Amino acid sequence: MRSFSKLTAGLVGQPMLEILTAVTAMEAAGTKVYRFEVGDSDFDAHPHIVAATKAALDAGHTRYVGSMGIEPLRQSIRGYIESGWGFRPDLEQIVVAPSNSLIDFVVRCVADPGDEVIFTDPGFPSYFAVTNYLGIRDVRVPVHESNGFRINPDDLEARITEKTRLLIVNTPQNPTGAVMTADEAARIAAIAKKHQLWVLSDEMYSENLYDGAIHHSPAVFDQCREQTIILHGFSKGFSMSGWRLGYAVGPAALMAKIGLMFNTIYTCVPPFIQYAGISALEGDRSLMRQRVEHYRQLRDVMVGALNEIPGVSCPTPKGAIYAFPNIKGTGLSSQAFAKTVLEKAGVATVPGTCFGPSGEGYVRFCYLREETLIREACAKMKLALQ
Amino acid sequence: MRSFSKLTAGLVGQPMLEILTAVTAMEAAGTKVYRFEVGDSDFDAHPHIVAATKAALDAGHTRYVGSMGIEPLRQSIRGYIESGWGFRPDLEQIVVAPSNSLIDFVVRCVADPGDEVIFTDPGFPSYFAVTNYLGIRDVRVPVHESNGFRINPDDLEARITEKTRLLIVNTPQNPTGAVMTADEAARIAAIAKKHQLWVLSDEMYSENLYDGAIHHSPAVFDQCREQTIILHGFSKGFSMSGWRLGYAVGPAALMAKIGLMFNTIYTCVPPFIQYAGISALEGDRSLMRQRVEHYRQLRDVMVGALNEIPGVSCPTPKGAIYAFPNIKGTGLSSQAFAKTVLEKAGVATVPGTCFGPSGEGYVRFCYLREETLIREACAKMKLALQ
Repeated sequence: MRSFSKLTAGLVGQPMLEILTAVTAMEAAGTKVYRFEVGDSDFDAHPHIVAATKAALDAGHTRYVGSMGIEPLRQSIRGYIESGWGFRPDLEQIVVAPSNSLIDFVVRCVADPGDEVIFTDPGFPSYFAVTNYLGIRDVRVPVHESNGFRINPDDLEARITEKTRLLIVNTPQNPTGAVMTADEAARIAAIAKKHQLWVLSDEMYSENLYDGAIHHSPAVFDQCREQTIILHGFSKGFSMSGWRLGYAVGPAALMAKIGLMFNTIYTCVPPFIQYAGISALEGDRSLMRQRVEHYRQLRDVMVGALNEIPGVSCPTPKGAIYAFPNIKGTGLSSQAFAKTVLEKAGVATVPGTCFGPSGEGYVRFCYLREETLIREACAKMKLALQ
Repeated sequence: MRSFSKLTAGLVGQPMLEILTAVTAMEAAGTKVYRFEVGDSDFDAHPHIVAATKAALDAGHTRYVGSMGIEPLRQSIRGYIESGWGFRPDLEQIVVAPSNSLIDFVVRCVADPGDEVIFTDPGFPSYFAVTNYLGIRDVRVPVHESNGFRINPDDLEARITEKTRLLIVNTPQNPTGAVMTADEAARIAAIAKKHQLWVLSDEMYSENLYDGAIHHSPAVFDQCREQTIILHGFSKGFSMSGWRLGYAVGPAALMAKIGLMFNTIYTCVPPFIQYAGISALEGDRSLMRQRVEHYRQLRDVMVGALNEIPGVSCPTPKGAIYAFPNIKGTGLSSQAFAKTVLEKAGVATVPGTCFGPSGEGYVRFCYLREETLIREACAKMKLALQ
């Protein structure tokens, strides 16, 4: 019989797809839309990274390469991890692949249908999308505004059962901007060790920290040799979203398994894209640092302007690239708020419920936009909500 | 408990990984290796395709785009399918993704663990790798040298059970170079319709046809609207292996599902790579045609030289990019033959058993190499086998 598989019957994509469809229709009809929904930057990739991609194309780096990633990029990643995390992983601990795909690969390699994976609510939607189509049970740990949306390690541990295989943690966190403390990182590492669980530590936004916040990772305790996998990539810190370049650092046996899976599904990341990654890590990073400082200014503009809207209250996140205001005072649900500001003010956002049920009462804005656009959009929302 | 998942316990990659490891070690030790194992060309991508990639980078096509693929590329694909297959698919029938990943996505969307998928033995190893790690049963249809390695539709139908969900067919075929006849394509389409099964028609090598052979596809009968999915890509016909660019044409509801899955796992194909695809389809194809004629000459050199080795008998394949000689007369198994010629002649090949048990007695050579290298390698093998 020709039908769809049971596993993919409830397949979900990034939940903002519906919003994107509405936005596309509005734009096609000539309406100006202020787009804060996509977690991407309005700012171009650094010129030397574009130049390195082109140079690699000219040098003929256009054929199949090994599935684990080219050695010079993995060497650069070793140095980058050493300088930022304080330990130097072996080459065999590193696999290069699009970051999102690594969520899928890690989950598939450590959990079977019916097993449990724990992650936060709200949290990055791909965690749920992946566990959902694999028939793996998602166990959600609510995080609360009152705790700065940080995960409470006790809440995490309370949800561990015999079926738990993997904990997914995320700092700085999408969508809330929460930044894990040193103590929390240590406690999560200890819990994982005690219960012999894998930890996928999604640290995509580690370059996006403000106000002197320091990046703390549960991965430093086992140096990714026993049970912890760092997920990292170039989209956010280096404005390279369209390159689809990321990597994982983890126990060598698991990385080898992921390399095999990546080999079957993708063969390799295009080599000229991998050379772009080398240029990002080895090249001048002053533009990146300037840009993070600029992002902080944009965050402050966005948070300030959101707090001027009656019924909206927005904490100042110390990391990532999102504002996640509490909109409960407007009397609207997250969905209704997003619908209202899209239709009446032309402002595209993502309802908090797209990140899990505990996102009710919140809305996500990516603030990597021109300052004037942020101010205009917030003024329009203020009018629309009156 | 921290362990690997049962599903991925027996994970296999491309079976040539072991060979690649040995080759890498030999090359590192300074030994010259004649590399016929990788299914890739020694010839560079067409200059206008490299130029288009660079122009797209300069134009800032470096951010997230829609998961189904950018519309201009999908429009180009519509035209390409119309000119080659004789029907014009709707835009919604096309999804752009690396071709290998589309095998994984199609199988996941139509089959659950315990279901059955039928494909040939020998056949492209990714079919088995994917069904294997998904817990889906692979049902193999042996193909025979006596039938030009073409699939016999009766043999296919005889293996259909209540659990069958998908037939995977491949023309021109990897590793044998077999080309499906018009009658076989029609019969396979009729069988799929009668039993209400999905058909994944892997037509990656449709540009690689020689001696006036014509491409016949089971997809033309339902125009990919009911049950058939064409798998195609740019690696083989356009010498673009390192771009990792492919696409599927199929029923819109299935393509939408695949788009959702691709959205979660990869977000999108890098947009500057998609522009390279437009340039391949819309630009000058005379170089591509010259190259196919050159490939035919290389095939003839390879087949001729292989047939001069005692105990080796090589038919002349009408398609794809491989010679698949019968080596039974040497008295060696496929594995022993590959080991012998690698160690004694420095020639890297893929044992036929890597493509399934019925590949025993055969070895695959990719002949897209310089003519002198082909002649030298065959001379060395002849010596080594004496």
